[in-house]
Amino acid sequence: MTETHIVRQTPPRISSDTVHAALRAALGRKVTSGDPEKMSAYLADQCLLTTAGVPAHLVRATAQEDVVETLKVAHRFQIPVVTRGAGTGLTGAANAIDGCIMLSLADMNRIVEIDPVGRLARVEPGVINGDLDRAASGHGLGYLPDPGSRDISTIGGNIATNAGGMCCVKYGVTREHVAALTVVLSDGQVLRTGSRTRKNVTGLDLTSLVVGSEGTLAVITEATVWLHPRPVGTSTVVALFGSLRQAVIAVDILTRTLAPSAVEIMDSQTIAAVNEFTRMGINTTAAAVLLLRFDGSETANSTDAELAGDLLGNHGASEVFRTNDPAEGNELMAARAVALTALESKGAILLHDVAVPVHQLPALVAGVGQIAERHELTIATFGHAADGNMHPTIVFDAADSHARHRAKTAFEEVMDLGLSLGGVLSGEHGIGVLKQQHLPKQLDPGTRNLTKRVKHAFDPMNLLNPGRAL
Amino acid sequence: MTETHIVRQTPPRISSDTVHAALRAALGRKVTSGDPEKMSAYLADQCLLTTAGVPAHLVRATAQEDVVETLKVAHRFQIPVVTRGAGTGLTGAANAIDGCIMLSLADMNRIVEIDPVGRLARVEPGVINGDLDRAASGHGLGYLPDPGSRDISTIGGNIATNAGGMCCVKYGVTREHVAALTVVLSDGQVLRTGSRTRKNVTGLDLTSLVVGSEGTLAVITEATVWLHPRPVGTSTVVALFGSLRQAVIAVDILTRTLAPSAVEIMDSQTIAAVNEFTRMGINTTAAAVLLLRFDGSETANSTDAELAGDLLGNHGASEVFRTNDPAEGNELMAARAVALTALESKGAILLHDVAVPVHQLPALVAGVGQIAERHELTIATFGHAADGNMHPTIVFDAADSHARHRAKTAFEEVMDLGLSLGGVLSGEHGIGVLKQQHLPKQLDPGTRNLTKRVKHAFDPMNLLNPGRAL
Repeated sequence: MTETHIVRQTPPRISSDTVHAALRAALGRKVTSGDPEKMSAYLADQCLLTTAGVPAHLVRATAQEDVVETLKVAHRFQIPVVTRGAGTGLTGAANAIDGCIMLSLADMNRIVEIDPVGRLARVEPGVINGDLDRAASGHGLGYLPDPGSRDISTIGGNIATNAGGMCCVKYGVTREHVAALTVVLSDGQVLRTGSRTRKNVTGLDLTSLVVGSEGTLAVITEATVWLHPRPVGTSTVVALFGSLRQAVIAVDILTRTLAPSAVEIMDSQTIAAVNEFTRMGINTTAAAVLLLRFDGSETANSTDAELAGDLLGNHGASEVFRTNDPAEGNELMAARAVALTALESKGAILLHDVAVPVHQLPALVAGVGQIAERHELTIATFGHAADGNMHPTIVFDAADSHARHRAKTAFEEVMDLGLSLGGVLSGEHGIGVLKQQHLPKQLDPGTRNLTKRVKHAFDPMNLLNPGRAL
Repeated sequence: MTETHIVRQTPPRISSDTVHAALRAALGRKVTSGDPEKMSAYLADQCLLTTAGVPAHLVRATAQEDVVETLKVAHRFQIPVVTRGAGTGLTGAANAIDGCIMLSLADMNRIVEIDPVGRLARVEPGVINGDLDRAASGHGLGYLPDPGSRDISTIGGNIATNAGGMCCVKYGVTREHVAALTVVLSDGQVLRTGSRTRKNVTGLDLTSLVVGSEGTLAVITEATVWLHPRPVGTSTVVALFGSLRQAVIAVDILTRTLAPSAVEIMDSQTIAAVNEFTRMGINTTAAAVLLLRFDGSETANSTDAELAGDLLGNHGASEVFRTNDPAEGNELMAARAVALTALESKGAILLHDVAVPVHQLPALVAGVGQIAERHELTIATFGHAADGNMHPTIVFDAADSHARHRAKTAFEEVMDLGLSLGGVLSGEHGIGVLKQQHLPKQLDPGTRNLTKRVKHAFDPMNLLNPGRAL
């Protein structure tokens, strides 16, 4: 097969003023060029260990036409474009590239339509995930994907990263909630993918391809997403285990007959940090805490939670707490929700994720413990147990260059460990800049080359988030 | 954006003998060339209204290496390749192209691995869907996707068409059950996509792209698919409605609180045919019959079935039957299972599918009725009510050329009707040859052009099922 070489041709030296004038003519006051102060909030996402360049231009789009005009100018002058939503990403995928146009979609935040009969919402990409869910709740429906950032992250960003969350175990990842997209290609061409029907096998599944492509294929200007009947009531079960392996075995047994909407796990390092921060007083002899939610109908929830509690008690849990009161349940789940804040109180953190086959979780946590010990770091592991998707979160002293170096080395060793257990570089955060150089460890040369050719099919001049993610 | 013109270059005139010699050298007795009798079983799939060419060569592959060797020869001599499994497709997607290599994967039928801990199966593409499900049942697991053809169709064909079925309403389409693929590109290069982890956001989702691509992007040589805990027991509810609209409203209300694993519907034409064929004696004043299955745990099933029965009774059903006995349930569902056979007893049939937003089902069925009347044909509509995915099945006299013509016209009008209701050309059968010329009605020129470029990225010489599906 002919190899497609994607080389960004050196553009004719166009002055920034010329580009600014073209953008300004098309977009007016939505454009800012070369103003470091106004740019400063748009340089990088939430990832600490990646660097960001300085954009030459910032466009704050308020409508699809702004995106089209921006890309036409970018295409004409061959300027790279980085698209961003709320900037809550954790891999540097939306970090500025030197000289790029930074295209912010945060102000494209209209919920265009909620169709309660078709159970669909049509939204602009800057809509905050939680805002859509609240709007849907007025119709007894919900937008279910629940990344930890759901109150601050945008639907567009969620789709670009195929965001996960706690409820994936029952409701699937973001990809399974996207029915159709309107996207703009790098030359300004507008395309529609997908449909408003529950099933569709017409042509290639370009919708799924754009989901998770981290801004490299096209710019999403509208998304049609599925809404679901809103789960009624919530029951919660918390169980402590003296052995992480036993906890994982219990999860396997439990999910053979029950369908919880969250199966979270925290290791002993996380428990210690949460205890220290909250004085919750979780039994410190526990090697693992499981936190489960059931969210069907009220009667089904309480029945399932009771079955789950008994089952966990019969399969190694030393203590089990259970409640059918949603407020009390939230208090129990708070231990998991506060984990990140608890760790941040101890130092700088590198929050990332790896995914492994579920039965490899004990080996992952044990191996992470050895890496932490070797590099004299705290690494606390918590995450989505039933999906095998963990956050081995590295705590380090950012002011200490040796500690930074050790953190970086540990991070790389954790990724190698995950891969050695049959895992993947990321289950829900994505690749971005943070993991880009590790891709060859997971994807063989043929796959990477095919990926380049597909990228070329969408973006032949390699203008959209060049050098990222793929 | 530069338009990519995909033009099959006229190959140097290679004699069939030369190609045969090359195939024979690589594949031995797995190759047959120019033997009409041996070829006859490999000419076409189950679609009546499409034509098929005559293959120059037939390869019956028994291992991935055979596929690689076949594609290398095809690539060298620029011969088109049509891949087929069991030939149960309904759109002509696996029909022979004149002079092609017909590549049968039916003999690559090993279940390579069942991993009960990871809940995965690794299979060759020729494994029959139902055989995999039975093998998984030994571990208390199931392969859930249930196309009507599951006892005779292959996993490879199911994946190539993103096959649907009754249980999609609860368990999703085939795409949601595929974890990873091994594929061979048109130049013989072997690639692996996806992973064995429940979540994976590393690189582009090439797995989803190959699913449903109808043999146009790559040849699948191995699939890793998800298994699920086997549903226990089945409860069944059948309800008769005097109005199809009322039945669809009842489905909407019911699926707000209950999660049936099948929600089938039959219109009055289908009821009449089933009555005539089986003497089941379904009340002929019914405009629609709903057939629902619940397949969770035994207690949950019977509770849900009771709730469903009451709910349907309160929302317009004139008669409701309910059973928690799986055998008796199968007898009730037999009305739906026999629909196709009942229609076939009345003439030749054109079985296809369209999908519309669920609330448009009454308009679809009414419109189909008008089309049938106008063309003096019987068109019976039945299918997956909660997915809006219907089979408007045209019955005609195949020996009468006028009737054939009227059937073809009616078929085209049904597709236009579906599209006019916000629907799609197909929800589960695919495009193949049957609907290929209608694609421009659903997909805009930009999308079609992008699709061509993606096809080019996979298959630059346009050798794999050229001119089909996309």
